[in-house]
Amino acid sequence: MSENGIMSRAKVLTIDTMNPTVKKVEYAVRGPIVQRAVELERELSEGMKKPFAEVIKANIGDAHAMGQQPITFFRQVLALCSYPELLSDSTFPEDAKSRACRILQSCGGNSMGSYSASQGIDSVRQDVARYIERRDGGVACDPDNIYLTTGASDGIVTMLKLLVCGEGTTRTGVMIPIPQYPLYSAALAELGAVQINYFLNEEKCWSLDITELQRAVNEARQYCNPRALCIINPGNPTGQVQSRQCIEDVIRFAAKERLFLMADEVYQDNVYAEGCQFHSFKKVLFEMGPEYAETVELASFHSTSKCYMGECGFRGGYMEIINMDDEVKDQLTKLLSVRLCPPVPGQALMDLVVNPPQPGEPSYGSFIKERTATLSALAEKAKLTEQVLNTVQGISCNPVQGAMYSFPRITIPEKAVKEATEKGQQPDMFYCMKMLEETGICLVPGSGFGQKDGTYHFRMTILPPTDKLKILLNKVKEFHQRFTQQYS
Amino acid sequence: MSENGIMSRAKVLTIDTMNPTVKKVEYAVRGPIVQRAVELERELSEGMKKPFAEVIKANIGDAHAMGQQPITFFRQVLALCSYPELLSDSTFPEDAKSRACRILQSCGGNSMGSYSASQGIDSVRQDVARYIERRDGGVACDPDNIYLTTGASDGIVTMLKLLVCGEGTTRTGVMIPIPQYPLYSAALAELGAVQINYFLNEEKCWSLDITELQRAVNEARQYCNPRALCIINPGNPTGQVQSRQCIEDVIRFAAKERLFLMADEVYQDNVYAEGCQFHSFKKVLFEMGPEYAETVELASFHSTSKCYMGECGFRGGYMEIINMDDEVKDQLTKLLSVRLCPPVPGQALMDLVVNPPQPGEPSYGSFIKERTATLSALAEKAKLTEQVLNTVQGISCNPVQGAMYSFPRITIPEKAVKEATEKGQQPDMFYCMKMLEETGICLVPGSGFGQKDGTYHFRMTILPPTDKLKILLNKVKEFHQRFTQQYS
Ligand SMILES: Cc1ncc(COP(=O)(O)O)c(C=O)c1O
Ligand SMILES: Cc1ncc(COP(=O)(O)O)c(C=O)c1O
Repeated sequence: MSENGIMSRAKVLTIDTMNPTVKKVEYAVRGPIVQRAVELERELSEGMKKPFAEVIKANIGDAHAMGQQPITFFRQVLALCSYPELLSDSTFPEDAKSRACRILQSCGGNSMGSYSASQGIDSVRQDVARYIERRDGGVACDPDNIYLTTGASDGIVTMLKLLVCGEGTTRTGVMIPIPQYPLYSAALAELGAVQINYFLNEEKCWSLDITELQRAVNEARQYCNPRALCIINPGNPTGQVQSRQCIEDVIRFAAKERLFLMADEVYQDNVYAEGCQFHSFKKVLFEMGPEYAETVELASFHSTSKCYMGECGFRGGYMEIINMDDEVKDQLTKLLSVRLCPPVPGQALMDLVVNPPQPGEPSYGSFIKERTATLSALAEKAKLTEQVLNTVQGISCNPVQGAMYSFPRITIPEKAVKEATEKGQQPDMFYCMKMLEETGICLVPGSGFGQKDGTYHFRMTILPPTDKLKILLNKVKEFHQRFTQQYS
Repeated sequence: MSENGIMSRAKVLTIDTMNPTVKKVEYAVRGPIVQRAVELERELSEGMKKPFAEVIKANIGDAHAMGQQPITFFRQVLALCSYPELLSDSTFPEDAKSRACRILQSCGGNSMGSYSASQGIDSVRQDVARYIERRDGGVACDPDNIYLTTGASDGIVTMLKLLVCGEGTTRTGVMIPIPQYPLYSAALAELGAVQINYFLNEEKCWSLDITELQRAVNEARQYCNPRALCIINPGNPTGQVQSRQCIEDVIRFAAKERLFLMADEVYQDNVYAEGCQFHSFKKVLFEMGPEYAETVELASFHSTSKCYMGECGFRGGYMEIINMDDEVKDQLTKLLSVRLCPPVPGQALMDLVVNPPQPGEPSYGSFIKERTATLSALAEKAKLTEQVLNTVQGISCNPVQGAMYSFPRITIPEKAVKEATEKGQQPDMFYCMKMLEETGICLVPGSGFGQKDGTYHFRMTILPPTDKLKILLNKVKEFHQRFTQQYS
């Protein structure tokens, strides 16, 4: 101990004296299994011997990391915006140059290095509004209702933040699907809001039942104040695509129960299954007539991270806000202004996503070709994944109608469940950890997303290139058979 | 009213039912005065007649928006990273190409479109660590202590979030300077923490007195639990640069009072005044010997937004964490993982800032030339601002030793104070609004940053190009004289 006793003093900030709501946060997609995967990668690179040659991270929807190529046009425009001297380079197509000029003209000092307005660059918000109008068959969209965000994550957390109030039985409750994308549970834990689970129906292809919504909200009213309903469509981790009818029913339910609707539509272009189609909540809402269109409060979220572009690292996104109270909107703008602005390169990228090359423009052909190639490959891989997994006894996988993941149900033998429980681990975490150690494949256990008690799942992205995906699926198959045998 | 009564129902989310802590947030840098400036710009562009030809936004430290040019090398590397086909373009210098390759090799799939690790790209964190070691004369820096962030704002809010706990008189209190950069008060309001003001000494060039810190913490202990001390050096809005002695005293004070230190050092390259020098808290801490170096908890923040690069739109930044409890560090990493990762282009830019061209590399000469030009121009404008403002009777301005702002004290005549009060406005808000309407100059009133009762100030950036700054200062002078006369 030192003279004045400083050395021996406890730290100011310890696990016991830190923010208790932060401690409650969980985020499985980047949890212990991923940390172990990173360790294994390091060990491999240091020459340690493992039963596999490489770690395959099928835990996260990170398309480029899995080898997907960026859209050439998007990257050309970003390069032009980053280094405008290139505008005089004749190898760049004219449409890329004109897009870059339009973006730069909307930036302070014509530089992406300026802060933008907190709500996002005006011209980008206008382009987003026009995109939404086209997508929704002409339903009007006001650029004032568009807020650019730092990925969809930022928009979702911000909206949840606005909604949280009350204490005890009047505390805000938010309905989320189970299984869910764990951003929702994490944000609710951090905000100290009440998480209200509604279960998707695995037997019916992970569809959403209104009776289940009703059960969930009725029960919740006994201990909190349900104020919002979150929908993920197409679903993560479950891959279902909601029917128009279902969306209408959900909107009616939200109106009846007075719930603020949050529609997470980041996978809006990722629809693969025959007969499935993406319907935006906004469009359906407006088609239901003024009784709904003028009253139901809706926030919908989009992102540059998914679809055919997969540009996660740029952290681009937007939200559209419908029927929000004007005073609350002012508060939202104020709140966003504290963080100054979303990253401008991400805003630029969002602009390109909503305003891609048009017929007649020089880059149109290559853009369509690249987009189609990526989306057809994803559709093929969705099918392949479902098919191979369903050949394995003890694995059953719903069709991957959309998004980027399969979420198969797995049978875990009693003996394995027991061993996991003794270790204090969830059985599917035990299963996934074992798979990682034996095969190098990194998946996320179903328990990270939530699942019906007594059922087990894992989530696996469909993103690896087809060849690799085949190998991966076969390894999963072999592992499952070995595991089942070992614990029978 | 419609059949089923939906039309007439109140909204779910209203000003009365929204998150009450969000309502308490204020952020003057983008407050009502800036909204009015944007309106005026629109009115001007629509041809409305005004007593001025353009709105000059001297309200925010947004260098590129004020015409500052980006560093060529940085933008070349960003273009190469965005569109790697350019790597075969012979017009790009080799050092730009090798930096781009190093960055891309650290990205999943060699693409900036991949999510990075939540803590930031490994190689960038290593480069940051080496930069800090060089800056601090060899004091060791562990890349594990570096967290890349979405601008410094993100790091600051995240650290504050970890620190907040307790209720009533045990609620976390955080000491902040007055005047302050209003991110601090906004974040504390949102987190429901207690803001503890310590006043900088305007009479002594906005320096920090330990006796004032002591007064503030003693009083605060009666109603909250002071746990953290925030320092902004060089200061925003006040422009002072702290002496080594002062920093040592602050560290000793933090140790004695058991406070977690947060050092906002985003202006570390912005030091202009003779005899002033930037000393990092980290360096001083380590020079004070193990008694301090091994115990005092410190987070320091840096950003791509300020200094000579002024790349605000990219939202790059880092924080270094010293002596943080290991369990809390794990919690921090988990918390960051929910938001996935900071924007990768911002990380790339941070990498360039900490690893710029070296002597012998082809871009070294132009880099040094550009950096020097920007920093000398800023030094000149700092001097000019102080000089011109001090020629005006009723304005007195401390030397702008560093950062990017002047924060002069202004005398507001009794009659004007009365008129403002009748309007329910702060007198300096009234003054700045009038200046905006009459001259098109957008400043931020001192009340947005906090100031001693009965004193009035405004904050003005020194960023406009010298010619424009001269015109602007003259307009401010004329306005002040007119205003004083009008209300005498
Ligand atoms: C359903 C869903 N919503 C939101 C996000 C957040 O994505 P981002 O913040 O990268 O836009 C994801 C990412 O995987 C997701 O799957
Ligand atoms: C003192 C200080 N800290 C932090 C910030 C935040 O900057 P950014 O989030 O752009 O890095 C600013 C911006 O002006 C500042 O002046």
